[in-house]
Amino acid sequence: MGSIAPYQRKHKITVVGSGNWGCAIAKIVAENAASNPDLFEEKVEMWVFEENVEVPQTSKNYNASNTGPQKLTEVINNVHENVKYLPGIQLPVNLHANPSLEDAVKDSTLLIFNLPHQFIIKTCEQIKGKILPYARGISCIKGVDVNGTGIHLFSETIGRILGIYCGALSGANIANEVAQEKWSETSVAYDPPHMDSQVPTPQRSPSSSTANLVEFQHKDTSGQISEVKLQALPSEYPPVDHAVLKTLFHRPYFHVRVVNDVAGVSISGALKNVVALAAGWVVGMGWGDNAKAAIMRVGLMEMVKFGDTFFSATIDNRTFTDESAGVADLITSSSGGRNFRCAKYSVERNQPIEEIERTELNGQKLQGTLTAVEVNSFLKNQGMEHEFPLFTAVFRILEGTMKVEEIPSYIER
Amino acid sequence: MGSIAPYQRKHKITVVGSGNWGCAIAKIVAENAASNPDLFEEKVEMWVFEENVEVPQTSKNYNASNTGPQKLTEVINNVHENVKYLPGIQLPVNLHANPSLEDAVKDSTLLIFNLPHQFIIKTCEQIKGKILPYARGISCIKGVDVNGTGIHLFSETIGRILGIYCGALSGANIANEVAQEKWSETSVAYDPPHMDSQVPTPQRSPSSSTANLVEFQHKDTSGQISEVKLQALPSEYPPVDHAVLKTLFHRPYFHVRVVNDVAGVSISGALKNVVALAAGWVVGMGWGDNAKAAIMRVGLMEMVKFGDTFFSATIDNRTFTDESAGVADLITSSSGGRNFRCAKYSVERNQPIEEIERTELNGQKLQGTLTAVEVNSFLKNQGMEHEFPLFTAVFRILEGTMKVEEIPSYIER
Repeated sequence: MGSIAPYQRKHKITVVGSGNWGCAIAKIVAENAASNPDLFEEKVEMWVFEENVEVPQTSKNYNASNTGPQKLTEVINNVHENVKYLPGIQLPVNLHANPSLEDAVKDSTLLIFNLPHQFIIKTCEQIKGKILPYARGISCIKGVDVNGTGIHLFSETIGRILGIYCGALSGANIANEVAQEKWSETSVAYDPPHMDSQVPTPQRSPSSSTANLVEFQHKDTSGQISEVKLQALPSEYPPVDHAVLKTLFHRPYFHVRVVNDVAGVSISGALKNVVALAAGWVVGMGWGDNAKAAIMRVGLMEMVKFGDTFFSATIDNRTFTDESAGVADLITSSSGGRNFRCAKYSVERNQPIEEIERTELNGQKLQGTLTAVEVNSFLKNQGMEHEFPLFTAVFRILEGTMKVEEIPSYIER
Repeated sequence: MGSIAPYQRKHKITVVGSGNWGCAIAKIVAENAASNPDLFEEKVEMWVFEENVEVPQTSKNYNASNTGPQKLTEVINNVHENVKYLPGIQLPVNLHANPSLEDAVKDSTLLIFNLPHQFIIKTCEQIKGKILPYARGISCIKGVDVNGTGIHLFSETIGRILGIYCGALSGANIANEVAQEKWSETSVAYDPPHMDSQVPTPQRSPSSSTANLVEFQHKDTSGQISEVKLQALPSEYPPVDHAVLKTLFHRPYFHVRVVNDVAGVSISGALKNVVALAAGWVVGMGWGDNAKAAIMRVGLMEMVKFGDTFFSATIDNRTFTDESAGVADLITSSSGGRNFRCAKYSVERNQPIEEIERTELNGQKLQGTLTAVEVNSFLKNQGMEHEFPLFTAVFRILEGTMKVEEIPSYIER
């Protein structure tokens, strides 16, 4: 695929984050950058939180004459494998691991955020004012941003801190399978104000870009309308539209549907992890497939209700049932996903889930437990715990005030 | 639970069919008949297609001094186990296996149909005119009745042949798990014309019941309206309403939601088996959970579209996404269901699915393959194969004109 009109500049891509899902997405966009040289700069930056790692003997990149700790970025750039978080997967040679966050995002027009949600705000504050003012973001973050009584999508939080427009990517995407190029689907949601195509004259220099602000009305999740000023993308660049985003993310093994519903795609990605915990517990109890399906049905209904109740201004209910980010992600997360697996082991081994996290996740944390706590704190503030019995049950089981055995009668309507 | 008013007569229950799902449902209703003596006669009849069986040595009912073939009905009535189709499960003592179809349904007000869909029409024709004219039916049959260019729900087909009203039961119910009393949910759909409560005087004898016909307009699946004459239930009986049906089917381990959408519940139960075949093939290929989830997402969308297109007069789309018969049944059928398993083995062992059927199903047949062929013949007649690419792909793979590898590009939209 290529653009129709020749543009003077190409999009520079940065992936912010390098866990297993960060690396899998970075692999995809680097492959597409290489095969679409008219749209994208070939070299793709990936910010890597630097740490010392040892190349395991099981890696094909193990070198007996060079053992001992090495910097993760150097390992990635030398042998093109994230030996710690995505071992066994060959990363593209045009993917550059960068230990400096500020350097990695500099001059990039496309910023892909893919890191655990507890780190996102700090990370954005660190690069605030240091990115191109007309950059566009895509959030791959599973979770919702809960502060005080409010709840926000991470795409909104990122956009607000950085003063850019940010969409979302989420789908039925167990990271390791995507990295192994097993066929899957995903949802990209992107619905910016109609402005990029309305800029008549290319802005030659980013520094003159303040002349090019476009105001638009932003309706937030509570339905409140606020004026937001966004920087239009200079017309030297190919416009960032659904077609370009499809070219950025679509691979023969990774089928992309681009939609407008950022709220639906983001909420699904967050809440399905909470449901997957319950599914894992139930399977761990040996209750079988019917019971798991019942949990998932109730979970899907609570996901839809949550969207309806708190994001009604923007959400499209069909996202939950029609798109990969909805029901499909719920299905795969409740089969092979890490929240499901850890919850299952927790019951089977009679160990707290934090213990399983430590032994199974190689230093990474579960998103579902965090989201369950945050969602519950929000629901409690709204006085609506009883309206979402499954989400509430998950929280109570996590805090130890309820047992898995109580779920069926607790959620029965 | 009990009725509020005392009624002169109780409902007599017959289960028509005794496969693994037939026996699991018969166990449930027999348990509820025993514990609700004010509503139901204690003895529940189950029609069993008679055959000679041997009690396997693994059965706790094996008797070394009484080996050799025995009649299946006698085994069930003597040792309360269907040693052939639901081995290892203790059936209630008030469940009576009856080899005579006509005797089993005689005088019953509640007929529960639970047999493979290829046998249903012949079975109904055999009992036509020999049942109570005011009996009510519940169809547990997965499948749709395709003849010529028309497609009908089995609940409609049963109702039409027998001249009674028939609802449907379907849900996320792997039979063996239900039989083992593992927690699950189900959907019962029942939406008769409002007539039962309108009969002022009890009819003392069924033979006088022809005086008590109520006409109502029946809107069939094509939207056509026809006049149907139904026999009102005499007011000596507790009315057959949602509350009574819940009492009939609900158990502590089997949670029932009663809804009105007979079409949605029936269609889901039929079409999910077609999707489960595709899910099984994909997993058999080793493509993983994301790929399976993608198949199920596309399958769910085609199920909704099928309902919208051909049953728009009556269907409620939310059944597919909100009820156990919809998304939950799709999930469990694509995990532990027999269509899924046989399709998976078929790829893994590189054997035709008919061969797997023979070796895995102990004489029973897959419903999914039959439904896939019937649905395709209907879609072909409508010139709409291309509108349902996954259903069409399943048919073509079954007939050998397409390969599993072609599914992703074939269904991509």
